[in-house]
Amino acid sequence: MVKKKIFIGVIGGSEVTAPVAKLAEEVGREIARRGAVLVCGGMGGVMEAACKGASDAGGLTIGILPGDSRDTANPYVKIPIVTGIRSARNVAVVRTCHAVIAIDGSYGTLTEIGYALQAGIPVIGLDTWALSIDGRADSNIIIAKNAKDAVARAMALVNKK
Amino acid sequence: MVKKKIFIGVIGGSEVTAPVAKLAEEVGREIARRGAVLVCGGMGGVMEAACKGASDAGGLTIGILPGDSRDTANPYVKIPIVTGIRSARNVAVVRTCHAVIAIDGSYGTLTEIGYALQAGIPVIGLDTWALSIDGRADSNIIIAKNAKDAVARAMALVNKK
Amino acid sequence: MVKKKIFIGVIGGSEVTAPVAKLAEEVGREIARRGAVLVCGGMGGVMEAACKGASDAGGLTIGILPGDSRDTANPYVKIPIVTGIRSARNVAVVRTCHAVIAIDGSYGTLTEIGYALQAGIPVIGLDTWALSIDGRADSNIIIAKNAKDAVARAMALVNKK
Amino acid sequence: MVKKKIFIGVIGGSEVTAPVAKLAEEVGREIARRGAVLVCGGMGGVMEAACKGASDAGGLTIGILPGDSRDTANPYVKIPIVTGIRSARNVAVVRTCHAVIAIDGSYGTLTEIGYALQAGIPVIGLDTWALSIDGRADSNIIIAKNAKDAVARAMALVNKK
Repeated sequence: MVKKKIFIGVIGGSEVTAPVAKLAEEVGREIARRGAVLVCGGMGGVMEAACKGASDAGGLTIGILPGDSRDTANPYVKIPIVTGIRSARNVAVVRTCHAVIAIDGSYGTLTEIGYALQAGIPVIGLDTWALSIDGRADSNIIIAKNAKDAVARAMALVNKK
Repeated sequence: MVKKKIFIGVIGGSEVTAPVAKLAEEVGREIARRGAVLVCGGMGGVMEAACKGASDAGGLTIGILPGDSRDTANPYVKIPIVTGIRSARNVAVVRTCHAVIAIDGSYGTLTEIGYALQAGIPVIGLDTWALSIDGRADSNIIIAKNAKDAVARAMALVNKK
Repeated sequence: MVKKKIFIGVIGGSEVTAPVAKLAEEVGREIARRGAVLVCGGMGGVMEAACKGASDAGGLTIGILPGDSRDTANPYVKIPIVTGIRSARNVAVVRTCHAVIAIDGSYGTLTEIGYALQAGIPVIGLDTWALSIDGRADSNIIIAKNAKDAVARAMALVNKK
Repeated sequence: MVKKKIFIGVIGGSEVTAPVAKLAEEVGREIARRGAVLVCGGMGGVMEAACKGASDAGGLTIGILPGDSRDTANPYVKIPIVTGIRSARNVAVVRTCHAVIAIDGSYGTLTEIGYALQAGIPVIGLDTWALSIDGRADSNIIIAKNAKDAVARAMALVNKK
């Protein structure tokens, strides 16, 4: 029997501005500091910045890759999972996590938010998508103030379960 | 060489209210009337209502199923595609279509909207998700007034390509 | 309620010799003549030859594609299903069928045979893989003598269910 | 930049006899002793025995799960990857590895052997499937004598690349 780890996902686009990359790096670092494993899609942008942050802080990083080769992973991924199923792997990124932190937002991130909310996996948002339907806001994305707050909220929700 | 058909998707939740089911049925009927093939996830709710509408009007209906058996399809699916990959099949539902019409909205529908916009496939919305980020609305979902308008817009966008 | 169709798969490599292509074309033609729908992976080689045979005989052809675009389908596919999940779509090719006919054999065909036997879907073989373990032959692939015999056996197994 | 690990897969059925379980456990232990990471499908049988062996020897174990929950993993999986795509995850199990060791053989194992050979990933066999076509044996599965020999051959092939 092995000790159970906490898996926190960071989801976000593969192209980012410098401030978003900085935010993602802080989130990654904070996840590692708290002893959780960082899970992401393994590519560039938000994913690479988060992996760099976690890796610099000595944390474990998992990249669940869309392509056919581990060589497509960003250089901070320690455990590359090579799915070969392209963007259908988004569901695996999300389901592997106890909670996910969504940063900024591409349409791929939107699919991951949808999969997480559908599966009842907590989603913490940092400058990410806001959803509404028929004029009513969907309140299931938990808004965080900053990187530290986002990770604190994710960990609190995990520990409650 | 075979004559190319137009494939229009209808995406929406598997549980619906009566007015939403009526709307989906009208959309399905209109797709068939215009000679296009209806594509959906093959299950109940919006998918079943749309298939019923298309089937009643003599149209072809494709259900791209999440489960392991064609017996899970709604009774109006003529071509059941049995993927066995659960909600990861959402990407296949969308990519099979020239355009998709989103009705109402579950979180599964949100993933399909994300996959469609990511792939550059037109999304026409009827009482569905509205998206915004950083206070700016995403304008890539085309809002339709009613079932007829939705299908007209979908067909117009296909024919332009 | 729609009338239930019979779906017969043809699985085989995307590169073939002329005699194998001829065999696949005969199998496709025979499937169409008997009123069943031909299902395949939608690409070249065995798949294209089988689709040509079925299409020439007026049958319906479904191609469950690995890639991101319907333009990758062979020209005889009438219903292109665009999965985007690369070779993971092999499981969907097989599960969509009441029975599959394996012709010749690439390693992709081997994965499809494995998925079919695992799911209890009959596999009829024409010059395809033979399997053994610990010196004992696996007898679950039904050996056919020729194209006509292969389709007759597939249809007989479907009708028994 | 992180140090690159070697990932060795163990593929085999979820139900096993005692001698096969013992063999799988030895393979898992040997993988860990040589400092490689064990990758498998995360379930019972061969997968559980291999994870137990690796875990007892202090190694890292990854289980790429078919289902929707990490609770379905065997108790020796340290990194559960939750794909949710059922047996389509077989392609991800294989592609994540530098080489795979096939033990005994269910039809699921056969799909994994097919995916590995298709992708050019070395397959080492221990009492597993033998393949032939048109009376000619396929010689691409490398036959090992015992657990130690299997892991030695896998590592040798990885290091050559």
